[in-house]
Amino acid sequence: MDGSAHRIDRTSLATARDVRLACRAGKFSGATSGLAPGFAQANLVVLPADLAADFLRFCQRNPKPCPLLGVSEPGSAQLPDLAEDLDLRSDLPGYRVWREGELVAEPESIADWWRDDLVAFAIGCSYTFEAALLAEGMTLRHVAAGSEVPMFRTNIDCAPAGRFFGKMVVSMRPLRPADAIRAIQITSRYPFVHGAPVHLGLPDAIGIADLAHPDYGAPVAVLPDELPVFWACGVTPQAVIAAMRPPFAITHCPGRMLVLDLPDHRCAVL
Amino acid sequence: MDGSAHRIDRTSLATARDVRLACRAGKFSGATSGLAPGFAQANLVVLPADLAADFLRFCQRNPKPCPLLGVSEPGSAQLPDLAEDLDLRSDLPGYRVWREGELVAEPESIADWWRDDLVAFAIGCSYTFEAALLAEGMTLRHVAAGSEVPMFRTNIDCAPAGRFFGKMVVSMRPLRPADAIRAIQITSRYPFVHGAPVHLGLPDAIGIADLAHPDYGAPVAVLPDELPVFWACGVTPQAVIAAMRPPFAITHCPGRMLVLDLPDHRCAVL
Repeated sequence: MDGSAHRIDRTSLATARDVRLACRAGKFSGATSGLAPGFAQANLVVLPADLAADFLRFCQRNPKPCPLLGVSEPGSAQLPDLAEDLDLRSDLPGYRVWREGELVAEPESIADWWRDDLVAFAIGCSYTFEAALLAEGMTLRHVAAGSEVPMFRTNIDCAPAGRFFGKMVVSMRPLRPADAIRAIQITSRYPFVHGAPVHLGLPDAIGIADLAHPDYGAPVAVLPDELPVFWACGVTPQAVIAAMRPPFAITHCPGRMLVLDLPDHRCAVL
Repeated sequence: MDGSAHRIDRTSLATARDVRLACRAGKFSGATSGLAPGFAQANLVVLPADLAADFLRFCQRNPKPCPLLGVSEPGSAQLPDLAEDLDLRSDLPGYRVWREGELVAEPESIADWWRDDLVAFAIGCSYTFEAALLAEGMTLRHVAAGSEVPMFRTNIDCAPAGRFFGKMVVSMRPLRPADAIRAIQITSRYPFVHGAPVHLGLPDAIGIADLAHPDYGAPVAVLPDELPVFWACGVTPQAVIAAMRPPFAITHCPGRMLVLDLPDHRCAVL
């Protein structure tokens, strides 16, 4: 789906706004990893206003998987603090539409599904901390392979809030121990893009039976001199939606993120 | 040796100065762990002045095992920035005297060995970061057991400087993965007391064949849901002295530290 759906050369998408406008014009529907380098991207969750307060509280209670970068006014498709000239209904490369916890469509625009009572949540994305790890000189295997990071549903319960409950989804990156320690230090500076890892080294302990079979993304090898390092993942809300089955929800399509005008360095608290 | 050597009740040693004066009076020669809580302790290395410049450079190149808290003037037994009314020749509970890399004596005072050309180095000690981990609510198994932390010689070469070379010694604390991550964050704030771990999870990778047989200290169990976490250790200079065999050296006796007036919190950079 990725390659064939491109109707514009990725190299022409220099800025975050270029990406958004290409999506809006129907000219780009691919993965956003590597686009607009130096700027943050976001996971998207859209819910009816009567669920918004519960989900806000859910995010507050689960800052590692659901660090909130921004929340829209009800009915508004804009996030003026995060992106100029934004239309959330069209400016992502791909969306998922959910009814009662079932995926019912994967459109390139949600204009036909938009309602005046919808509230949009922009949740931090690991691309920002991955850029910091790559800048440190680390090799990230899924980046080297050009594949999507492997993600796993865990046995870790998110803290429930109102109607929202579910298991945490984590992304996994294999690192040598000294790099894992450095990665913990670096990602600790970025709590708004998932922050420090939630686990490392013992996948069984968080309910992951087989690292070769991720629930989302593509598998990568963990070499004998490496530890699997697990970060909370912004796909968690999609597992929560599948678990608690709200009447209606929209999310981004994994890997097809909302590209923001927010510089990566602004996501560091330190 | 520990219990029988006490000639004063540990509970009467409220301050760092109390400890130093009791040592000086020949009334205390026990382990210093837990004494003068809230204040830092130090590893001691004493070398002839003609080796001091090389050792200073060795410490600068190896800040994880050898973080320097203070260096004396040649011939001076004082470290006025670190402890009031200090006499380094008597104020530690126990010393080791080395000739050509061989341990030749373990006296309670080094007055008889003192020379006008000696330079003393005070090197940060893990007790400060252990206090921070305990304050976080973590259990440290060797503390719970009342035993000395297990220490291991590794296959990690220290960066050489002049005549000084040797392998890094590490201390090991077993922690559950989430606690290990938090411990990395906490100890990263304390670079002058060894800072963040140097390794975790794969002892073989740093040349440790058997966690049940430490080279110094007492063994502790690593449970199936825990990872062994390894910090650079201030005993490293003693392994270096044994390797490079200087004509003369004095160190503290492991566990019998120099107790300082320096508050633990002053050791945090953040």
